[in-house]
Amino acid sequence: MRGALHELFSRSLVESDMRSAPYEFPEDSPIEQLEERRQRLERQISQDVKLEPDILLRAKQDFLKIDSAADLQLYKEQNEDLVDHLPKERDVLLEREFQRVTISGEETCGVPFTDLLDAAKSVVKALFIREKYMGLSLQSFCKTTARFLEELSGKPLETRSYEEIPETPVAADAPVHPPFTDQHPYETCLPEAMPADLGFGLRMVSGVIHVYTKRDVLDLLYPDLQEFIADMNVLMALIINGPIKSFCYRRLQYLSSKFQMHVLLNEMKELAAQKKVPHRDFYNIRKVDTHIHASSCMNQKHLLRFIKRTMKKHLDEIVHVEKGKEQTLKEVFETMNLTAYDLSVDTLDVHADRNTFHRFDKFNTKYNPIGESILREIFIKTDNQVSGKYFAHIIKEVMSDLEESKYQNAELRLSIYGRSRDEWDKLAKWAVSHKVHSNNVRWLVQVPRLFDVYRTKKQLANFQEMLENIFLPLFEATIHPASHPELHLFLEHVDGFDSVDDESKPEHRIFNQDSPLPGTWVEEDNPPYSFYLYYMYANMTVLNHLRRKRGFHTFVLRPHCGEAGPIHHLVSAFMLSENISHGLLLRKAPVLQYLYYLAQIGIAMSPLSNNSLFLSYHRNPLPEYLSRGLMVSLSTDDPLQFHFTKEPLMEEYSIATQVWKLSSCDMCELARNSVLMSGFSHKVKSYWLGPNYLKEGSEGNDIRRTNVPDIRVSYRFETLCQELTLITQAVQTAELETIQEEDP
Amino acid sequence: MRGALHELFSRSLVESDMRSAPYEFPEDSPIEQLEERRQRLERQISQDVKLEPDILLRAKQDFLKIDSAADLQLYKEQNEDLVDHLPKERDVLLEREFQRVTISGEETCGVPFTDLLDAAKSVVKALFIREKYMGLSLQSFCKTTARFLEELSGKPLETRSYEEIPETPVAADAPVHPPFTDQHPYETCLPEAMPADLGFGLRMVSGVIHVYTKRDVLDLLYPDLQEFIADMNVLMALIINGPIKSFCYRRLQYLSSKFQMHVLLNEMKELAAQKKVPHRDFYNIRKVDTHIHASSCMNQKHLLRFIKRTMKKHLDEIVHVEKGKEQTLKEVFETMNLTAYDLSVDTLDVHADRNTFHRFDKFNTKYNPIGESILREIFIKTDNQVSGKYFAHIIKEVMSDLEESKYQNAELRLSIYGRSRDEWDKLAKWAVSHKVHSNNVRWLVQVPRLFDVYRTKKQLANFQEMLENIFLPLFEATIHPASHPELHLFLEHVDGFDSVDDESKPEHRIFNQDSPLPGTWVEEDNPPYSFYLYYMYANMTVLNHLRRKRGFHTFVLRPHCGEAGPIHHLVSAFMLSENISHGLLLRKAPVLQYLYYLAQIGIAMSPLSNNSLFLSYHRNPLPEYLSRGLMVSLSTDDPLQFHFTKEPLMEEYSIATQVWKLSSCDMCELARNSVLMSGFSHKVKSYWLGPNYLKEGSEGNDIRRTNVPDIRVSYRFETLCQELTLITQAVQTAELETIQEEDP
Repeated sequence: MRGALHELFSRSLVESDMRSAPYEFPEDSPIEQLEERRQRLERQISQDVKLEPDILLRAKQDFLKIDSAADLQLYKEQNEDLVDHLPKERDVLLEREFQRVTISGEETCGVPFTDLLDAAKSVVKALFIREKYMGLSLQSFCKTTARFLEELSGKPLETRSYEEIPETPVAADAPVHPPFTDQHPYETCLPEAMPADLGFGLRMVSGVIHVYTKRDVLDLLYPDLQEFIADMNVLMALIINGPIKSFCYRRLQYLSSKFQMHVLLNEMKELAAQKKVPHRDFYNIRKVDTHIHASSCMNQKHLLRFIKRTMKKHLDEIVHVEKGKEQTLKEVFETMNLTAYDLSVDTLDVHADRNTFHRFDKFNTKYNPIGESILREIFIKTDNQVSGKYFAHIIKEVMSDLEESKYQNAELRLSIYGRSRDEWDKLAKWAVSHKVHSNNVRWLVQVPRLFDVYRTKKQLANFQEMLENIFLPLFEATIHPASHPELHLFLEHVDGFDSVDDESKPEHRIFNQDSPLPGTWVEEDNPPYSFYLYYMYANMTVLNHLRRKRGFHTFVLRPHCGEAGPIHHLVSAFMLSENISHGLLLRKAPVLQYLYYLAQIGIAMSPLSNNSLFLSYHRNPLPEYLSRGLMVSLSTDDPLQFHFTKEPLMEEYSIATQVWKLSSCDMCELARNSVLMSGFSHKVKSYWLGPNYLKEGSEGNDIRRTNVPDIRVSYRFETLCQELTLITQAVQTAELETIQEEDP
Repeated sequence: MRGALHELFSRSLVESDMRSAPYEFPEDSPIEQLEERRQRLERQISQDVKLEPDILLRAKQDFLKIDSAADLQLYKEQNEDLVDHLPKERDVLLEREFQRVTISGEETCGVPFTDLLDAAKSVVKALFIREKYMGLSLQSFCKTTARFLEELSGKPLETRSYEEIPETPVAADAPVHPPFTDQHPYETCLPEAMPADLGFGLRMVSGVIHVYTKRDVLDLLYPDLQEFIADMNVLMALIINGPIKSFCYRRLQYLSSKFQMHVLLNEMKELAAQKKVPHRDFYNIRKVDTHIHASSCMNQKHLLRFIKRTMKKHLDEIVHVEKGKEQTLKEVFETMNLTAYDLSVDTLDVHADRNTFHRFDKFNTKYNPIGESILREIFIKTDNQVSGKYFAHIIKEVMSDLEESKYQNAELRLSIYGRSRDEWDKLAKWAVSHKVHSNNVRWLVQVPRLFDVYRTKKQLANFQEMLENIFLPLFEATIHPASHPELHLFLEHVDGFDSVDDESKPEHRIFNQDSPLPGTWVEEDNPPYSFYLYYMYANMTVLNHLRRKRGFHTFVLRPHCGEAGPIHHLVSAFMLSENISHGLLLRKAPVLQYLYYLAQIGIAMSPLSNNSLFLSYHRNPLPEYLSRGLMVSLSTDDPLQFHFTKEPLMEEYSIATQVWKLSSCDMCELARNSVLMSGFSHKVKSYWLGPNYLKEGSEGNDIRRTNVPDIRVSYRFETLCQELTLITQAVQTAELETIQEEDP
C-alpha cells in the first residue's frame, strides 16, 4: 500500500503542466518585477530615445536581450516615421529593421535548374495572361508583380495604363474617419439632374453587348473568345504538368517555413511595434466583411426578434396572395398554427447543423424560416406584396449595428437572376425608396447560375436572353441615366458582380471552340462555370469602358470560386476575376495556389461556413495560406446560418484566433487585407489605411491606422519580390541561352 | 493538350463537395417542397394529434419514416406532459419514448467475471467513501447513486438524512423568472436587527476550530484525520490498480459508443422535441458561468474603456501612496508617461497569447495592465487607497450586462488570503458599502495556496495561523452576527470555497500519518494540495453544522482541480468537494473518470482558457466527457485574458459548438448542467429548471424551461442506472459467494 502510494506520488511529481488562478501574487515575485521593469523600460526608450541613446541602449539590451545597436536606431527612426513617411529614409532603415532570412548558394530554389527554367517560363506566361485580362477589363493587378513583368517584357503593361492615379487627397496626419456627407444619397432622385443621354444604340452580338453610334459600332475593347479559349487551354495544361506542380509545391513549402522562421525571430519586435502605437488596437482598426449575403446577414436571434416585432406591429398588413386571395400577416401565421409567442430559434430552424454537412440541398432549404418559403418571401425578399419593406427594415437594423460598431463594414450580396428585364429597376427602386444605404456598406450583385432551371421552365429561350436581362439595363442606365434614375443612383454603391451556385454540380459540357454561342445555347443543360464567368466578364468589360468614358466608376468580378467541385473553376477565376470567395480547393492545386500568391489575388475565406458545410474547422487551409503570404481575409458568408453572437465578424475573428493561435499581428494583417481587397473607394481606403496605402511594401503601411507593424509588411513585400526575382531571372537566363543557341 | 484537358475535366467531375449561396431557389425545388411539407405536418401533428390520430399517424409515418405506432402515442403523451408532470404516467411512456440500445447475454460488461467482481467492490467502496464525506459536510451527493448504495447497504445514508426537503414552492406553470425582491439586500445593515449572540467560545484544536459552550465542547460533527488518511490511501491504491483501470477504461469506452448510437437513432426526435416547445430556445434558457474570477470577469476592451473613462473623470483623486507620498491618478500616469489617448488593448497587454502557453509565470503577470502592478492595485483590487471603488464600479458594469442579457449568470471568485484576521471584514465592507450585488451573481471565495510565500516573509508563524485567519471570522459572524454585521450580510451571497494555485508546482511532502499538524507546520515548504483541502473541508464542515443549527445556509467546497500536476489532487477532490473546476487530467485517469461519472460530480470546464495555457482546443476532453455522461458545463475562467466579444459566455458556447459540432440539444444540456451544479438557491433553480428539478430522470426535467428534450435526460438517467446496477449486482453476487464459502 505504502509502496503504491510512493510510486504514485513520485510519478505525479514529474508531470509538469503550468497554470494558476488570478489572485494577487506575492509582491516580490521576481518574474513580475522583471516584466514590470522590462515594459516600463520599453516605454521609456520609445519616448526618450532621441535624448540619450547610448545609456538606454545598454539598459535596453540588458532587458530585451536584443542583439545589435541597429535596434536602437530602429526605434529612433520609427519615431520619426510617425512624423513623416518619406520613402527614401524608409528604404535605408528597412535594411536593419528586423531579422531577415536569406538563402545563399548556387541553386537557391531546391529543384534542378532546367525544371526551374520550364516552371518559371510557364508561371510567367500565366501571370502575363492574367495581367492581360485584368487590364482589358479595368480591374486591378498586383503592382509589384506588374513591375517585374514590365521589366521582363520591356514595355508598359495594360494594367499600368489604366492604373488609378493616387492623387493622395488625404494628409498624412488626417483622422482615420473619412468625412462622409450628411446628405442621404437617395434623398433626391431627379432624372433632369442626371448626366445627358448619349443616344447610343445597343445590340448583343454572340453573347456580348455591342454599342453603336448613329453610324457604326463604338470602338470599346471587346475580348476575343478564341483567344480566351486558347489562353484557358494553356493554363489548363500548365496546372496538371508534373514538374511544374512539384516546383510550385516546393516553393509553397519554402514560403511556409520561411514565415515560421520570420515569426520565431521577429514576433517580439512585431508585438513591441504594436504596443508603441498610441490608441490603436485590433478593436479599432477597419475590418470589411468582404463575403456576406444580404438575405442572411442578420443572425438567427435577430431575425426571430424582428419577425416577432413585425407580428406585433403589422398584424393586419396584406403580405401575401394565396390563389388570388389576399392574406394578412395574421392570417398567414394562423394558417401555420403559430403565434408570435410560439416562435423560437429552434422552430425558426434557419441555423446550419450537423445535418447540413455535405448536404447542400438541405442547407438551401434552411433559408426558409420554419421551413416555410412563404416567410422567406415575406421577410427576406426585396420584391413582394409589401415591396420588400420588412427586408429593408432588417437590413437597415444590421447597417446601424455596423455603424455603431464604427470599425466594422460589409459588402452585402443582392441577387439578380436574369429571368426578366425589369429585375434591376425593381431592385434599385427597393433600395432607393426605402433609403437602404449606409457608409459602412457596399453592394455586390450575385447572379445565380440557374439557366438550366429557367430554361426547363421555359422562362428563357436561350442563354443570351439571360445575359441581356442582366446587362442591357446596366448599359441603358449608363448611356441614358435618366431612363433608369433609381438604378443610376443605386449603381454608385455597387462594387461589382458575384457568381453563385453549388459548384459541385456535375458539368456535362466543356467550354471550348465547339461550344455553342449564348444565342444558340438552347438545351436544358446548364453551361459550365467558365462559360458563365467568361460572358459576365466580357459584358462587364465593355460596360466598364463605357462607364470610364462617362467618368462613372467601373465594376469588378468577384465570384464564389474553389469552394468545391472542379479545380478548373479556379483557372477561369484566375484569368477573369479581381478576387474570389472561398478558394478552399487551392489546397489541392499547388500550381494555382502559387499563381494566386504571385498575383496576390484576394481570397475571402469563411471557415465557420466551411465548417458547417464540408470542411472541419481545424482542417481549413486559411492559416497555411496566410503563412505563405496569400492575400486572404476573414468573412462571415451567412451569419444567419453560422453565427451565434451579436457580432458575427468579431466571432469569426475570435474563433480563428483562438483555434489557430493567431497573433495580434496576424489578426491585424487579415483585417488590413480585407480592406485592401474590398470595393470601398480609393479615398475611403486612404483614410482607413493611410494616404500612401497604394505604395508598395511598408511605405504603403501606416501602423497608426492599420496596427500592422512595418516589419510584417516589409517581410511580405520582400518575400514576394524575392520570389518574383527568382522566376523572372530564370526566364531571362533561359532567353539568353536560346539566343546563344540561335547564333553560335 | 486536348487529352490533358479531358483528363482534367473528367477527374474534376468525380470530386463532390456540396455547397451554394443564399439566393432564391427555384420554387419547384423538390427537396424544398418536401422539407416544407414535412415541417408543416410535424406542427399539424403536434397540435391536432388529440383529435384524429390515425389518419395523421399514417401521414406522419410516410414523411418522418417513423417506425412504430408508439411514436404517435408519444406525441399525445408529451402534449399531456406539458399539462402535468405526474411520475406514474411518465414511467409508463418512457418505455416507448425513443430508440434504446440494450445489451443482452451472460457477461454484458466485456471483462472476465472475476475482474468485474473485484472492480465493482472497489468502485462501490470508493462511492461509499465519497458519500460519507459529502454527508458529513452537508454537501450534496447524487440522488440516484445514493439510492443504489442504500439498497446495497440496507440502511439509510448520511446524505439522505441531510437532504434538502424540496417543498416545491413553485407551481408547474410558474413563470421562468423568479420573483426577486426589489429592496437591495445591502440597503440596510442594522446590527440590532441581526440574530442574537449565542455566546459560544472558539478554539482551534490541531487545525480544526472547536466550538465551546460555557461548560464543554459543542458536539458538532468533527471529521477524523486518521480515518481520512486511511480512506485516501484506499483510493490511492485503487486508482493505480491495473485490472480496475482496464475495467473502468472499457466501461468509459462503452459509454462513448453507446451515446454515439443514441444520437444516431434519436437526434431527429430530440430536435423535433425542441422545436415543439413554444418560445424556448438556446438563447433564452438559463446559463451559469460556474467558473469565473472577479478580477478578470470583464474583457480587455471593457477594462480599457473603463480605465480611460476613469482617467477623464477622477484625474485628481488620490489613488496611490508611493514612499509615503500621495499620488493622484494623473500623477500615476504621468510617472508612466501615458495619456488616456495612448492606451490601447495592445499596451494594456492583459490578454493571453502564444507566449503564455505553458508559461504560467508569464501568464500571472498578465494581470498587471501595461505590466504595472500599480494599475492592478488601483483598478482591480478591493482594498486600496480608493477602498476598491473603481473595482466595484467595473464589477457592477459587468453585473448590469448580465442582468441585461437576462439569461446569463455568473459565480464570481473573490480572494481571501489568510494573512490577517481582518481580510473578511474588509472584503464584506467593500461589497456592502459599494452595494456590489446582483440577482444574476453569486460569490465564491478563493483561497490561494501561498502559505510558503507568507511563511518565508515571516507573515505567518505556522499553517494553523492561516487557517484561523480564514475561518475564525466566519465562526464569529455565525455565532454573533452583530459582531461582523457586513460579513453576516455578505455571507448570504457566498456559495462556498475555491482553492487556487499552480497545481503543477512540485509537492515535496506527502500528506500521511507522519505529517505535522497545522500548528506544528512551521517550515517554509508549502503543504501539499490534499493538506490544504482537508483542513478547509474540516473547518467548513464544523461551520456548516453550526450554521445549519442557526438556520443559515451552508457552504460547499469547489476547488480548482485536475487542471495540471499530480493526479492525486483529483482523489482529494473526489472525497471532499461537491464539484470542481477543470478536471482535465481525468482524461489520464480512467478509474477516477469513471468514479466522477458514477457520482455525477460537477466539472466546470473552460476550453478557451486551457487552449491559451496548455491544451489545444481540439484536444480538449470536454466532448468526450459529455458523450460519456459526466456532469460537465462550460465556463469562461478569465474573460479578460481569453475572450474577445462582449458576451464571453456566449463566445465560449459558440466556439465549442462550432469546433466540436455540438447539437442544439448538447448545448442546452451543458447549460442545464451549469445551473444544476451552481450555487443558486433551491427556489431559484425551481423557477429556472422546473419545480421538480430535484426528481430523478426526465421527471426532473421541464423542457419548457430547459429546452432539453426528455429523451436526452431519460437516456442519461437510464444509462447511469444500468451502470450502477451492473456494479451493485456484481457486489451482491460476490457477497453471496463469500457467504456460501463460509458455511458449506
